Amino acid sequence: MQQPEQVDTFAHSGEVGLVEWHDYESSRPFTFQNGDTIPGFRLRYETYGKLNAEGSNAILVCHALSGDHHCAGVHSIRDRKPGWWNNMIGPGKPIDTNRFFVICSNCLGGCQGSTGPTSINPETNRPYHLDFPVVTIGDMVRAQHRLVTEELGVQEMYAVVGGSMGGMQVLEWGVRYPEFVRRLLPMATTARQNAQAIAFNEVGRLAIVQDPNWHDGAYPPGQGPHVGLAVARMMAHITYLSDQGLDQKFGRERISRAAARTLFDAEFQVESYLRYQGQSFTNRFDANTYLYFTKALDRFDLYGESGRLEETFEAIRARTLVVGFTSDWLFPPKQNREIALALLRAGKNAGYAEVDLPLGHDSFLVHAPELYDLVERFLI
Amino acid sequence: MQQPEQVDTFAHSGEVGLVEWHDYESSRPFTFQNGDTIPGFRLRYETYGKLNAEGSNAILVCHALSGDHHCAGVHSIRDRKPGWWNNMIGPGKPIDTNRFFVICSNCLGGCQGSTGPTSINPETNRPYHLDFPVVTIGDMVRAQHRLVTEELGVQEMYAVVGGSMGGMQVLEWGVRYPEFVRRLLPMATTARQNAQAIAFNEVGRLAIVQDPNWHDGAYPPGQGPHVGLAVARMMAHITYLSDQGLDQKFGRERISRAAARTLFDAEFQVESYLRYQGQSFTNRFDANTYLYFTKALDRFDLYGESGRLEETFEAIRARTLVVGFTSDWLFPPKQNREIALALLRAGKNAGYAEVDLPLGHDSFLVHAPELYDLVERFLI
Repeated sequence: MQQPEQVDTFAHSGEVGLVEWHDYESSRPFTFQNGDTIPGFRLRYETYGKLNAEGSNAILVCHALSGDHHCAGVHSIRDRKPGWWNNMIGPGKPIDTNRFFVICSNCLGGCQGSTGPTSINPETNRPYHLDFPVVTIGDMVRAQHRLVTEELGVQEMYAVVGGSMGGMQVLEWGVRYPEFVRRLLPMATTARQNAQAIAFNEVGRLAIVQDPNWHDGAYPPGQGPHVGLAVARMMAHITYLSDQGLDQKFGRERISRAAARTLFDAEFQVESYLRYQGQSFTNRFDANTYLYFTKALDRFDLYGESGRLEETFEAIRARTLVVGFTSDWLFPPKQNREIALALLRAGKNAGYAEVDLPLGHDSFLVHAPELYDLVERFLI
Repeated sequence: MQQPEQVDTFAHSGEVGLVEWHDYESSRPFTFQNGDTIPGFRLRYETYGKLNAEGSNAILVCHALSGDHHCAGVHSIRDRKPGWWNNMIGPGKPIDTNRFFVICSNCLGGCQGSTGPTSINPETNRPYHLDFPVVTIGDMVRAQHRLVTEELGVQEMYAVVGGSMGGMQVLEWGVRYPEFVRRLLPMATTARQNAQAIAFNEVGRLAIVQDPNWHDGAYPPGQGPHVGLAVARMMAHITYLSDQGLDQKFGRERISRAAARTLFDAEFQVESYLRYQGQSFTNRFDANTYLYFTKALDRFDLYGESGRLEETFEAIRARTLVVGFTSDWLFPPKQNREIALALLRAGKNAGYAEVDLPLGHDSFLVHAPELYDLVERFLI
């Protein structure tokens, strides 16, 4: 997931401003879809705006693979990097914190404060590592459901919104909790990954598990398969962008030749950019979470045994707007369209909007007034 | 580069049959474009058909990044895998060995018998490793020129043909030796790589050079950065195929679940396929050659200082047919079209054909009667 290129100033909008995260501790056992149980879990989350008396104005924002709970505002007045969807969320912005109580939680299995492979297994007092249960998109959503109902007092969810892996969660919310959710707004996503997306994830996983520092997942905190994780991230990052976007941003521009002392130093700007992306990712993300989450993506399949998406969608009650992006080749328009078509075939209230942006899969994160309008109107 | 899916039986065609390779040893010094000189070099090559008395019926076939000199026929009667373009080359086939003297050489810098980083540096009696000069597409072509003129007695080249990196060599032949070449047939190629293609190559190179077994390129024969090379190959292999092709071939098919003992074993068929591709590649290809060749690809740029491709093409005398493939997203149709357009802007005899095949970049290698017809007619 790429950070927005700029902090957007949405017309007449303000900023969420200073925010802080909270930890929700669920002390009841949680059984994963695969049958494994953990005694409880933590979800780290943020909220912006206020829940109304009826508990009916909440919007849940679901993050993508490498995202987190910090989707708007800043953590200190010196914090120069706002949350990852700060252009979309705030007072007067498309997801308007003057109207809505906005919630975003780090996913179960994550590495940014929520319970995941790096967490201490209370039964052994040692990190779970690969003893952490295999997590699915459905498990993530079920854990979030506890957070919003048991901790935050949400009575019904005004909307669930998210892109990429977040969009999968949006769909899963609609299917699992049809009586609870009023609107679904999945973007740049798919009801099941195709072979190419699985293939890219598999190469990334192999880069990680074959890194000698992976140690079958039992690496010490702060250490681990940094080389493999950086390679996985660099490759994935290419799939989040686009041919055209990379050409516009980097083309064949070279960095100072003087700096390229050997043949295999970064020579082109795009190389230097990718290296930075890979390196910085290893400082903030856990390799095991990367493995678990990519598996969750690959196994996500709403087509079910019958292979008919509309059967799965029979359950959905929410109004749905699916947004695809012309230049997204990871989850291309066709896959997004197909979600809306299957909803329509199932007789649901659904629409599809295709936004013409050149920036690839990450288009949902960048400054895009056309997208802002769609989101704002859908949430009225 | 993918092997053809089947041994094609072109209408009324026969097979090249048993072939053997030869080694051309050039004992004169060779100075690379970067100014470095080696005392001589070897090119391993094969030929099929016979050179006519005038030395004017030769066709040079240029191979892609991971290809070699063995493009047709078999090496023994028990050899079940013919050369990589056996469907295209043979008696009565599009590149007709009854008419033409077909030459294919392993590139300078390669690892399949030609002089490259694994070769012994006669000045040190040790392998070159990273002391091997930085090789360019132009250097490859200049070495081939010695082979065909000094060793094989070719007086003029009837045609130069090749896809991908081979297509770059085809263009370079036309520019460097305009009086010598009659026809150019580049396929699935580009006059310069865009940022996305450079980015993928860079991730592959980093996977290799960060493998602890790389040892700055000085690994012993048969050993080396096999993990990094396999990762690089797997990733690259995805870019040689297509979304649609992978879906048709693998979809979301799973291999036996019983065989998937742990979460990170291959689960989907596409994963198992890619793992095999990566593994088998490390058995036949040298990691340093992979580094050198991908750099040659990235630096290839016929646009030159002026940024105007037609200026570079002023030199060309050959008739040219550029072939692009609809589903090729590594060197997409647009980049192939642009080659033909620039030739036309330069007043040259050039055309562009776009072949609608779903198999991505590797489409030039597969059974495709429409492509056979184009090649056959162009070579009349």
